[in-house]
This record gives sequence, structure tokens and C-alpha cells, in this order.
Amino acid sequence: MSDLFAAIEAGGTKFNCALFDRQKNIVAEARIATTSPEETLGQCIAFFQQQREAGLAFSELGLATFGPVDLNPTSPTYGNLTTTPKPGWKNAPLMRTLAEALNCNVAIDTDVNAAARAEYLWGASMNTNVSIYVTVGTGVGAGVLINGKPLQGILHPEMGHILIGDIQEIQGVCPYHGSCVEGLASGAAMKAIWGVPAQELSDNHPAWAIQSKVLAKFCHNLLVSFSPERLILGGGVMAKPGLLESITQETESSLNHYLAMDSKLSEIIVPPTLGERSGILGALALAMSVA
Amino acid sequence: MSDLFAAIEAGGTKFNCALFDRQKNIVAEARIATTSPEETLGQCIAFFQQQREAGLAFSELGLATFGPVDLNPTSPTYGNLTTTPKPGWKNAPLMRTLAEALNCNVAIDTDVNAAARAEYLWGASMNTNVSIYVTVGTGVGAGVLINGKPLQGILHPEMGHILIGDIQEIQGVCPYHGSCVEGLASGAAMKAIWGVPAQELSDNHPAWAIQSKVLAKFCHNLLVSFSPERLILGGGVMAKPGLLESITQETESSLNHYLAMDSKLSEIIVPPTLGERSGILGALALAMSVA
Repeated sequence: MSDLFAAIEAGGTKFNCALFDRQKNIVAEARIATTSPEETLGQCIAFFQQQREAGLAFSELGLATFGPVDLNPTSPTYGNLTTTPKPGWKNAPLMRTLAEALNCNVAIDTDVNAAARAEYLWGASMNTNVSIYVTVGTGVGAGVLINGKPLQGILHPEMGHILIGDIQEIQGVCPYHGSCVEGLASGAAMKAIWGVPAQELSDNHPAWAIQSKVLAKFCHNLLVSFSPERLILGGGVMAKPGLLESITQETESSLNHYLAMDSKLSEIIVPPTLGERSGILGALALAMSVA
Repeated sequence: MSDLFAAIEAGGTKFNCALFDRQKNIVAEARIATTSPEETLGQCIAFFQQQREAGLAFSELGLATFGPVDLNPTSPTYGNLTTTPKPGWKNAPLMRTLAEALNCNVAIDTDVNAAARAEYLWGASMNTNVSIYVTVGTGVGAGVLINGKPLQGILHPEMGHILIGDIQEIQGVCPYHGSCVEGLASGAAMKAIWGVPAQELSDNHPAWAIQSKVLAKFCHNLLVSFSPERLILGGGVMAKPGLLESITQETESSLNHYLAMDSKLSEIIVPPTLGERSGILGALALAMSVA
């Protein structure tokens, strides 16, 4: 056990690598593009080896990854990606490759479970019994914490693939389900549907009204399924000003006062306190958990 | 503490009252129609008082009720129904009325949480980390157990009100959400939509194909949200021969091999082992929990 912790936030677009001290300060970091598993993992390994050669020792790595990923410790494919639609990454042995090359303890979880953990320890959902962290980024995913522990059944949840029905104006693009939430509202789906990345769509583009409608139905389903104290909406697409407020309003209409709650929906549906750092801090929390 | 336990399964159509011994044998029972709270609860109280007068003493009552119900023990309206669309029953003080009239310890939970508990203790979901009990009866509801404990956030889950999108052939009838699962597929919805009770619809009536489609989307959403080891489908409507198998097949198509599981879906989606007795046995389990 050393005083530094390695953390990787593995995403569909980039891998964020960081070395943290115990006070959650970043000592060194790198952003590596997600290309092929060999190239991307190779660059991650090279980055951390360089830190060690520079005298920055660590014995634990936290790995917060996109999914789906095998999180069953007794499985022969523990720590591998499974059926991801991301080209080239299906069955990639993420955890084993990193653990062997860097010779350290690796704790792995989904990116959303890790971000949920960071927000629970240091952010928007401290002391909650039930909290959910949603990311609307390249993909859509959600992690649920129940008394601080991630919900894990046979597999980890894959809530981006919740069905909310077809949307008249657009055709969903999920290769498995067509119009699931990820197929309709992820950053990748928006780009495929509208031809440009979400951040290039103007404020009055019809995409945003559809986006609010889809994500409000998603929030409706998460609220009636889990009744969380906090439903944190993060990820790159959620950076759009006003989107969170408009989703909250539409969710209110959709629920139509069915849930008799004292809390206002605007206190439940919130942005991540840790902002864009919730993912990498979640990886840090994982590394700390195996120290 | 006596050797007998009182149990009530409070449903939208009838209240089943029973007195059990420790071996789960029924010593006395009554079925009371669900009319008004005063009349129905009055008849339940009279039944249990008669048992006491006949020498059958008990000190604990388990109450497994339809919802939504306030399950927060610190709330002034603990044990009251809340926003139920059932005429006359909104805000009915179920638990207090029974506890005061019968002067006994009452443990309350939703009908579906109670049934989930009975199946976990004595039925289809023993030793599971995550299990779900769904009822498709007068209403649609689901209870989730995580390591044997019911999932409870701000409120209990209200999964019957999950949205799965509009269905072309029919118009949903939920007074809050129109086409939520309960509005499309509950016994009450089927009767409203097709004009006769579900059990009177012939085997080749188009209602059944729609029913399978709606409930398969519901199962899809529950599987990607919770990844349960068992998803138990109970309730009166599920008594239809072949319905469970056809839902399982449609869920398989809907998931489209996205979830990389070793278990077959036919081992996850199962009928209740305790059959129609899971509700009242769940009420017994509640009564035993406060003894």
C-alpha cells in the first residue's frame, strides 16, 4: 500500500488516467483516445509505468469502465467487457490486461456505479438509502446504490436499454433494441440521428424537445422503479444549459402527481456535485476500496 | 406472543383474512369483498374478533396491502393508503384502524413485497440476491427483494406505472398515466378495454397477443434495471395457460441477446411456487416478523 492511487475512467470516447494522492489531488493525468483495446490499454499502461519510473509508486488501480462488463468475481471472464456494441471491444479483457502489466490490485466497476459511489462519498447523494447516477454521454447508463452498495444481480443493471416506446419524430439507433433510451438519447444516437454532435445543435433545434421527452420518460421509469432520494443526471449531453430543468418539468407532468412525496422533484433530479470529475473520482474510490 | 398469527391480504377485489399456526396451516379464514373502507375493514375486524371469542388468540397481524401506501414509520400517515385510484380508498388509515380495533402489533407492507418475502422464505426465490415478485391482477405491481430485504426509497416502488410506450391497438386506462403497464395490462384495464373480464376472453382473442407484448416490454425493463435472479410473475391474469411462456419468448426477442447471461430466461421468469397463496403467506411472514 502506497500513498498514491491509480484511477482509470474508461469511456467510449476516451480513457482518463490519473494518479491521486490521499487528499484527492491529481498528481499526474493523461487522456487517451479510445481506439482499439491493444492501442488504448497499451497507452494507459505506458502512462502509469512512466509515473512509476519517475518515482510515483502505487499498488492499487480503480477501473471505472463503460459496459457491459463481467463483474462476477467467480467468473473466468471477470473484468472483461461482454456484449458492448463498441467495435473491437467485445470481450476485451480490460482488468486482466491492466492488472498483469501494472502488477497491482485492480478494483473494477461500471463507470456509472463508480460515479454513483463518488457522489455518495463526496457529492450529491451523501447519506441516502437509494440513489441513482445516470450518465447521458456517448452511451446512456445508470448505477444504483442501496445504502452505499451497488445493485448487482446476475449482471449489473443496463438501464440505458430501458424501453420507453417509439418516438414519432425519430428512429432509434441501438443495434440491439432500436428505440431504447440509449438508442434515442445518447450522444452517439443524437449524432447519428441529427448528423452533428449534440453540442453543435442550436438551442432551438427540435432535437432538444425530443431529448427532454425521452429522458423524462426514462426518469419516470427510474422513479417508479426505485423511488430514489437522488436521481443524478450527468454526462456530456447533460451539459446543455436548461436540459436538466426541462427534463424535471416533463417528468413532473408525466408522473401526474401519482407519487405522493414530500420532496420536490427538483430536489431529487439533480446534477452531479462533482461535475465531470465524478467518474474519475469514482475510480479513485474503487482504488481506495482495495487498499 | 401467542402461537397463532393473523394475516390479511388486502386486494382491490377482496380482503383475504386468515389465522395461521406456526406450521403455516390455516386455522380459520374469510374472504371479504372490497367495498368501502368502513364496511370492509369492519368485516375483517369482526372476523378476527369472532376467532378470539372462540378462543383463538393472536397478538400479531401481518397486513399485505394494495397500494400506494405510506410505509415510512416516522410519517404521521404511516400505514395509510395514499393516492390509490380505487374509489373511496384514498388516504384510508388501514393499519391504524386494524391495530386499534384488534389491539395487536401490525406489520404492514405492500402485497407484492409481502408475496416476494413469502417466495423468498418458502418458494421460488430462496437464497437469491435480487428477486422480483410481479402481480398482474386487478392492478399491476412489483416488489423487489435485495438479499431478502424489500427495496424502499422515499416511497415503495410503483412499477405497475412503468411506461413502455403506446400500443397501437389499444388505449390505456390508467387515470394518472393512460398507457402505463397497469393502464394497459391489469385485469381492470383488460375488462375496461375489452368489455369482459380477462378470464372470459377466448384463447384466440387478440387481447392475449397484446398482453404478451406489453408484459414482455415490462419484463425487459425490469431485467435491464435490476438483473434479478428470479422474476416471478403471479396474480390472477397470469393464471391464463401459456401466457407466461409467451411473455418469456417475447422478452427473449425484445432483449435480443443483449444481456450476456449463463441463466436461461425460462429459469428467471417463473410462476410463484406458492401459487395463489403467496400473498396471504407473505402477510403471515410479516406477522411472524413482529412476533
